[in-house]
This record gives sequence, C-alpha cells and structure tokens, in this order.
Amino acid sequence: MSFERGFPVSEYEARVQKAQVLMHEAGMDALLFMTQNEFTYFAGFQSNFWQSPTRPWFLIIPSKGKPIAVIPSIGENALSLSWLDDVRIWASPNPDDEGISLLADTLKELAHSRVGVPMGPETHLRMPANDVVKLRNALAGVEMADATDILRSLRMVKNEREITKHKYICGLVCDAYDNIGTIAKVGRSEREILAAYRLEVLGRGADTVPYIVSTAGKDGSDDAIRFPNDRALVEGDVLFIDTGAEIDGYFCDFDRNFAIGRASDATQRAYDLAYRATDAGIAAVRPGARACDVWTAMADVLASGGAKGGGVGRMGHGVGLHNTEWPSLMATDQTVLQEGMVLAIEPGYDFAPGKMMLHEENVVVRSDGAELITRRAAREIPIL
Amino acid sequence: MSFERGFPVSEYEARVQKAQVLMHEAGMDALLFMTQNEFTYFAGFQSNFWQSPTRPWFLIIPSKGKPIAVIPSIGENALSLSWLDDVRIWASPNPDDEGISLLADTLKELAHSRVGVPMGPETHLRMPANDVVKLRNALAGVEMADATDILRSLRMVKNEREITKHKYICGLVCDAYDNIGTIAKVGRSEREILAAYRLEVLGRGADTVPYIVSTAGKDGSDDAIRFPNDRALVEGDVLFIDTGAEIDGYFCDFDRNFAIGRASDATQRAYDLAYRATDAGIAAVRPGARACDVWTAMADVLASGGAKGGGVGRMGHGVGLHNTEWPSLMATDQTVLQEGMVLAIEPGYDFAPGKMMLHEENVVVRSDGAELITRRAAREIPIL
Repeated sequence: MSFERGFPVSEYEARVQKAQVLMHEAGMDALLFMTQNEFTYFAGFQSNFWQSPTRPWFLIIPSKGKPIAVIPSIGENALSLSWLDDVRIWASPNPDDEGISLLADTLKELAHSRVGVPMGPETHLRMPANDVVKLRNALAGVEMADATDILRSLRMVKNEREITKHKYICGLVCDAYDNIGTIAKVGRSEREILAAYRLEVLGRGADTVPYIVSTAGKDGSDDAIRFPNDRALVEGDVLFIDTGAEIDGYFCDFDRNFAIGRASDATQRAYDLAYRATDAGIAAVRPGARACDVWTAMADVLASGGAKGGGVGRMGHGVGLHNTEWPSLMATDQTVLQEGMVLAIEPGYDFAPGKMMLHEENVVVRSDGAELITRRAAREIPIL
Repeated sequence: MSFERGFPVSEYEARVQKAQVLMHEAGMDALLFMTQNEFTYFAGFQSNFWQSPTRPWFLIIPSKGKPIAVIPSIGENALSLSWLDDVRIWASPNPDDEGISLLADTLKELAHSRVGVPMGPETHLRMPANDVVKLRNALAGVEMADATDILRSLRMVKNEREITKHKYICGLVCDAYDNIGTIAKVGRSEREILAAYRLEVLGRGADTVPYIVSTAGKDGSDDAIRFPNDRALVEGDVLFIDTGAEIDGYFCDFDRNFAIGRASDATQRAYDLAYRATDAGIAAVRPGARACDVWTAMADVLASGGAKGGGVGRMGHGVGLHNTEWPSLMATDQTVLQEGMVLAIEPGYDFAPGKMMLHEENVVVRSDGAELITRRAAREIPIL
C-alpha cells in the first residue's frame, strides 16, 4: 500500500470554491481562519511552527479567487512556497499590534457586511482574547458571524485522495499493533510501553503520533485517557492502547486491548460484548443514517449485555486532520451520514468498578455501508 | 545525569499560593485557565487528550485553597489522581451547554467581582468563541479581566526542580546532535532526515519532540520554519536542524547547522558571525538586564559584520512548558531578567538572498550571569 504526499492544486481550488458557494449562501463576504488544520486544508501549508504560541496566523477566503494569508514575517518564505499568491506580513512579535491592523485592513478590503469565523463546537480562536476585541472594534460595521457549519460540512466529507491517506495510516498502525507482543511484557511499565510503542509506529513511517494512551490494570484498564504511570505489567493485567497517528496530516484513531498471560472470564465477556457492539455500529453505518442511529445500534447491544454505554460521553466520532472531529456518535447528534465520511466506531463501558472496556475501529461511509479501513480487532481478546 | 518525574505536592501548593497573592493584588477573586500548560503547571495533570478539540477543560484558582477542576466526564478518573480534591464534571460532548452552566455556577460561587483569565500575548481561550459570549453573559455582574501578567510572571521563573528537567532534555538533544553524522548523508532527503532524527531523539528518551525543523540548501538553508521537502542532500549543502523536545513537560529549544562535505567561505563567515553574536547574547544575560539589552548585544555584533539581525522578529525567547514562551529577546521587550529564567539565545540573519544563518543555545539566568545548559555549538561549522 502506498500514498502520495500533498494534493494537486485543483484539490485546494475545489475546496475553496465549495467554501465560497457556502459562504455566499450564508451571506458572508469572506471567511477567516486561524488554526493549523485550516491552513493545511485550504492553503496546503504544513509546518511544525504551530507549536509556538507566540504568533497568530490568519487565512482569509475571499468571495472569489485564492485564499489570502495574513501572517507573521517569519512565515513569509514558507507560505510563498504554497499555491497562494497573496501573502501579507507584519513584523512579529509585536504585542501592541500583533497583526490586528493588517488583518482588519485586509478584511475591510474584502468584506462589507459579514465575515464568517468558526465560533462553534470543536473550534477556538487561536489569538489572544484581547486581540479578538480589538479586531471586532477595528472591523467597525463588518459583523463576525459563525462559520462552523461551513467548515464542518466541508471537512467532514473526505475524497479518495484523503481516504487513501487515512487507509495508509490505519494499515501502518494495524501492523504496529500486530507487533505489540515484542513491546508489552510483564515487568515493563505503562510509560516504557508507551515510549517503545511510539517508536514502533514512527519506525514504520508515521509522520507523528500525537495521541497515544497506554493504560493497564488487573483484569481491565481503569481509564481511557490518563497519562501512563510507572507500574509494571503483571500477569492478569489488561493493557489498553489507543493511537492517534498521522501521515501527511491525516489521522487514524483506534484502540486495542491485550491480556497479559491470561484473561479472566469477566474480561473475556466484556471484550465479547464490546466486540459485538462494534459490529453493530459498523453495520448501522450507511449514507442517510444519522450519527445517533449508529449510537443506538451500539447502545442496544451493550444494553442486551446489561451494560450502559457511553461513559466517555459518546461512542465514536469523525476522524480527519484531527484525531477527533465532528460528528459525535451520540444520542443527541442528528448529523446525517454521507458518503466519504471517515468515522471512529467506539463503543465502551465500565464492566466492573474501575474497569473499562473500549473498542474502536475506523470506517469510511460508502454507498452500500461501512468500509472498514482498520483490520478488525481479534474476535477474542489476544493474550500476550 | 538524571531527573525525577513530577513534583511534590508542595511545589503545586507554592505555585497556587503565589498566584493567589498576585490575584489579590490585582483585585481578582478567582483565576480561570483552560489550556494544557496551566493544567500541568497548577494541577500537575498531564494527558495526551489535549489533542482532541472536542471538549474544553477548565481550571479555577480560588482565592484560598486548592484549584477546582470543571471538566468533561471523560476526565474525571484521570483528574482524580491529581492533588486536587474538587473535580466537577458535566456529561460531554454536549454542544448545547459544553460546560458553560457548570463553569459559570462554580465561578459565581467563588468570585463576586473579577475573574482573571489570560487574554494577552501568547495566550488564547481554548473554547468556542460562541461559548465565551455565553460565559460572559452567564457571569452577569462578574467581570473577566486579563490575568496574563500573573501567569507570565509565575511561569517565566523556574526553580531548580524545573531547571533539572530543562538540563536533562538539553543534554539528551546535544547527544542526538552529536550523532547527526549517522543520519544526515548525501542522497537523503530533508524529510527522511527529520524522521530519522526524530527517532534518534525519542530513542534517547525524550518524551515527545513536537517541534523539529530540518531544512537544507546550497551553502545555507533558506528557511527556519518550513516543512521538510523531498530534495536529497548534496555536497555543499548546509543542513539546519531545530529541536523542541520535551521531558516531563519541560522543553529544550535549540538549533544546529551542519555543512555537507564542505563549507564555502561565505558560509563559514556567516557561521562565525552568528557564533560571536550568540557569545555576546550569552554574556549579556544577568539578573537586572532587560530582554532588549540582550537583543542589543547580539544586534551590535551582527551589525559589526554588516548584517541586520532579527529577520524572524526577535533573537530569542523564554523556554518552559512550551518551546517558546515569554519574554521575547527583541528591541521593544523591556522585561527585566530574573534568576531562574530559562532563555533561548537565538541570533540570526540572512547572509545572502535565500540563505539564512541562525544559531541557538539555552541558558539559565543565574546571579552571576548565564549558565549554559546546552553544550555550546562547535566553534566552526561542523562538516559531515
């Protein structure tokens, strides 16, 4: 399996044009973005520089034509290598005017009534709150309106080029999980296992692995998100590993459970129930179904086993340029599934006090249902 | 060299007490934080879950006593392992009320006039902008005031426990740089070098390496921040590598330059000038000096060589729980240096069109001047 880095310019043009159609419908003259994923998505710009919180970066989609970047001077050369033509810079850092005047002037040139900015779920403004106020004032008569729905509707649906990247990283991480027996051993701590497993995934060619969880406990891990500790694995433990790895910007996000030496009956039953709930979730995926329908399919199986699912608040989510994206597979999310969505199907529950069982697979929504892009977990809990 | 993970509870108590003194002086009844570093700093809570943008997390410092966490249900177990006693949860995701009611109720219980929130340089609010408005409305008579100065003054100064971690990661990355000859070879691309170098740093025990730049060009790299490309190294190239690696939350941030096969006279002269500017910057560091004084010392050396420094906007910065933090070593930053600050001394300039030379070392401000915590770069550009 292989994948190609980057996208042809036509891909970015198409994304921008779709955004422009939607912003016209919403009565917006321009869209304003300031986070890493939007620079990647619309400008094709990748950088590790987002790690530094010092300087904001701004990307504007005008009503016609290419995006315009309003960025700190340090980024000028890097951005000029992208498909954009109009890159405007300010000398930064400049805490007294950290790009606000230049940004406001640029926006007023392009927009006369409304600028769309993502202000809803799963978004934030990556700039100081004081500067948000300054920007609103500087924009005077131009309203800032919520553009979350536009961004969400674009990014939730992936095309084949994007799906190829998702598949590649899923396959790579499946291979890494298959090799877990060389890493997870009695006497090794969660922290050591996490470090060795990270090297395993990177060694196989993932670009980065920003999200890893490695937690273990007697007969079951106690938690799906906590940091690893220094307790050494002992026989009878269940090791839970969750992986958000990325290639060329696109993530996988799925977990696996492993029994160390032996698995108790309760653990095996818990694994079996979560496995069947996952099957039900995968089977419920089709265009036209709602996110809550997939949730219900999983919750019904868990309920049939006497379990109450969704202790983590949902049982799956979108996957894309982040390890978790819209929609949420939960009772209240009415999002209608469309072909090309990439989803994590993730039923879980506490099967005993302090013991959780969480399964996860990644799928693409296809015309005839779910295409599994992870290799399905073992039918019974693997014993290492 | 070794380091100890975590901190004793007394460390967190001391941090919180200092914050409480400063908030009283500022007339604030409570402080509100919502970003990873503040959860690490005040609660001692580490997690990879910050990678998921779905759910906000809130940490409140009341006027007396321990911090209070207001967090999504998925974090309850993980947070309960910290030194905090009061962890309040809401069932999340819940886009209709993503913690806002619970947060507002908690704040109103603790604060009657002003809540401090970081709203200034190098900060942002990690929650949807729409929810910021909801929160302001829900707080009714309680004002949200800027607490950047409080946070900044606390985090800028490190104690010996923190400095030990900085030193450990600096030493580890120095060792990795010493081994670069096995990684950077003619025929290998920037991207391959970055991937192999990341494994080198992680293999030596860094927890994560969120920031790496690997850029090369004939006689000099063209850029300090761009993403690596697939061009293979050829003789005569200069390879620039910059590393923001982290152990137990604490970063190093320093770069190195390497000539491939040979170095031109111009490259050697550029390296020499940047080296001497770094020396001058290090020599200018002492308690009582201002950030701009250190900048001037470096700029003077660069000017003596006919160069104009600071194309990237500054020539150094603080280092801590982020690879870049306050202050900025630049002409306009009047921050007075104090013992315990950890700084990146980073002079750079373009020595020819499209060729930059950037040096960087990390130091601790001590009573008698700078203590170098990186091993000083080679006096002449190393030829691989």
